[in-house]
Amino acid sequence: MIVSFNPSVRTLMGPGPSDVPPRILSALARPTIGHLDPEFVNMMDEVKGLLQYAFQTKNELTIPVSAPGSAGMECCFVNLVEAGDKVIVCQNGVFGGRMKENVERLGATAIMVEDEWGTAVDLAKVEQALKDNPDTKIVAFVHAETSTGASSDAKALCALAHQHDCITIVDAVTSLGGSELKVDEWGIDAIYSGTQKCLSCVPGLSPVSFNEKAIEIIKNRKSKVNSWFLDLNLVMGYWGANAKRAYHHTAPVNALYALHESLVILQQEGLENSWARHTHHHLALRAGLEAMGLEFVVAENDRLPQLNAVTIPEGVDEAQVRSRLLNEYNLEIGAGLGSLAGKVWRIGLMGHSSRGENILLCLSALEAILSDMGAKINIGVAIPAAQKALNQ
Amino acid sequence: MIVSFNPSVRTLMGPGPSDVPPRILSALARPTIGHLDPEFVNMMDEVKGLLQYAFQTKNELTIPVSAPGSAGMECCFVNLVEAGDKVIVCQNGVFGGRMKENVERLGATAIMVEDEWGTAVDLAKVEQALKDNPDTKIVAFVHAETSTGASSDAKALCALAHQHDCITIVDAVTSLGGSELKVDEWGIDAIYSGTQKCLSCVPGLSPVSFNEKAIEIIKNRKSKVNSWFLDLNLVMGYWGANAKRAYHHTAPVNALYALHESLVILQQEGLENSWARHTHHHLALRAGLEAMGLEFVVAENDRLPQLNAVTIPEGVDEAQVRSRLLNEYNLEIGAGLGSLAGKVWRIGLMGHSSRGENILLCLSALEAILSDMGAKINIGVAIPAAQKALNQ
Repeated sequence: MIVSFNPSVRTLMGPGPSDVPPRILSALARPTIGHLDPEFVNMMDEVKGLLQYAFQTKNELTIPVSAPGSAGMECCFVNLVEAGDKVIVCQNGVFGGRMKENVERLGATAIMVEDEWGTAVDLAKVEQALKDNPDTKIVAFVHAETSTGASSDAKALCALAHQHDCITIVDAVTSLGGSELKVDEWGIDAIYSGTQKCLSCVPGLSPVSFNEKAIEIIKNRKSKVNSWFLDLNLVMGYWGANAKRAYHHTAPVNALYALHESLVILQQEGLENSWARHTHHHLALRAGLEAMGLEFVVAENDRLPQLNAVTIPEGVDEAQVRSRLLNEYNLEIGAGLGSLAGKVWRIGLMGHSSRGENILLCLSALEAILSDMGAKINIGVAIPAAQKALNQ
Repeated sequence: MIVSFNPSVRTLMGPGPSDVPPRILSALARPTIGHLDPEFVNMMDEVKGLLQYAFQTKNELTIPVSAPGSAGMECCFVNLVEAGDKVIVCQNGVFGGRMKENVERLGATAIMVEDEWGTAVDLAKVEQALKDNPDTKIVAFVHAETSTGASSDAKALCALAHQHDCITIVDAVTSLGGSELKVDEWGIDAIYSGTQKCLSCVPGLSPVSFNEKAIEIIKNRKSKVNSWFLDLNLVMGYWGANAKRAYHHTAPVNALYALHESLVILQQEGLENSWARHTHHHLALRAGLEAMGLEFVVAENDRLPQLNAVTIPEGVDEAQVRSRLLNEYNLEIGAGLGSLAGKVWRIGLMGHSSRGENILLCLSALEAILSDMGAKINIGVAIPAAQKALNQ
């Protein structure tokens, strides 16, 4: 007989999920009500408003897709792309590759603009691709690459795309709530994110937002959207502003309670304060890691505060370190993905995980294990360096 | 400022979600851990085993899709259907129509076999369609129509499909855990369900199961699966038996805790006992409703115990009744969908909602409101009739 599952209590400093605070877990466990209950419908409206704040947008179509971030990505592509379209996809990590898969599975062409993993998207290359492909419809890029910790200049990329009459699809899975993101001011046309990163909500939902230009494209498609589940023409009937909420699918009721609570917390902290907190803690973690002798993968100007990719000291079995962190300290950090697999660790400071306590735990545990394994690191200096930065 | 959301405590006797018991809500709120944490991966294996029990199958590919039932439906169609295929879709309610949408959006042809809403799928019509369309690849039908409360003979339909060299896709959203369902014995090739019906888990996940024949079709597709998110060739890398769990998407960790707990509860009760409990309570509710003078939509032999569609007494504003049930008794029952909208109520007795207390509450509240509104019903006889049936 299989018995109830009781997980260990972990500290989550990987690339997500991040630590979910008790307030959000409590909200998650509130009594389930119907997905057409007037109380629930009213809460849906609040979630839309709170998401508009988080995205810094007035877009009416700002909702959580009832599935994880990869479904949010698919929601953007499947609604905006039609067979035969040309899409410029910027790849500087894992998720650009996934965008390519999305474009090609729709019978469209992906023009790839590739940059080295760990660097930002190169504007000059994108401009060249736009000039070479004047019939491009969409420019798609990742604002904050979770696989590398690199941030790209979303504002400049959007401006460039618009100069060439393209709309933009932006992956903000790791940036939403953790670093500056201004959908309307930057002119982002379609955007998707996740709940389990800097919002510190449980995984399973994907906030998205589409502006009027994007909605016009969706409404004027030549063909039906390939996916019934993700067809925004139908989803809008349930989430839309019109009084009649047409049943489309059963919303993940309790997950939405949790998202609501995570967004209330963000509103209470203030978006700019949350961005500042992520930067403050990044600087403290960085001070400690650099004092220890570890190096960052991403150049300083392009570094995401919430996702710190660092190189592994020579001769160290990186998987063993992660395993010992988990088993001895209940601490999760992330491995490298794709071309960075085995070469880096990814240390997340996302949402509720972005706290001084976590930084001190992570640095102490890492130092203890690395020194125990005979790695060449500087001993006894990481914590004082981090403490100093935390006090600034 | 928007504040935390605290829903009223409802009794859920609509078409789902059903009442989620405290044990499952507690499991849902356990601390989030990483989606690649060894403890989590071990729990995933348990979920697979427990789902195999619930589905009565040995199918290795038995997993929950990380999205609601409509995504589970789409997962079956998008993986098994290719452009140009011919699929027989049996429609006797809302969900057959959704299957048609799925088939057509994949560039395939849906041969519709239509039956009146509230009746079972007619085997003779399906046989004729198979004879008329010898190049059919798949027969798709709904085992338990949530929109009408009609059950169809899944075993006979599968046998018929196999005689004509077709595989089957079966919608078991409302049957899983609530009424007899035997995937292997009946020869179901692909099946999807939901968590928020007779499993009484929160909405948001869709258990699916595919047998070897279905997997062969998926592995030998001419074209890539249209959806990256639902591509089982990729999903199998994360949920598969192989030691290396390849990252595909971030699993909805906490929702899976809840599903695990709901399946542990099912295992403890015993599947046959759960089926018997649903039937027992259906008979009690039926005794009460019929004593009151209400009539069932579905003929006795095809009636689902867990979803009771009853006609509305003449001259009664059905929406007002539902609204009063919700506001005065915190009790949710369902409206009619599609061609039954405004004509029926759907009273669910699913999972944890299938309890004697709920039946007595529902009958008392309905009697009080209907008599207050001057409806022609029999007074004072429903509760004794239901009590008598409950005691049998």
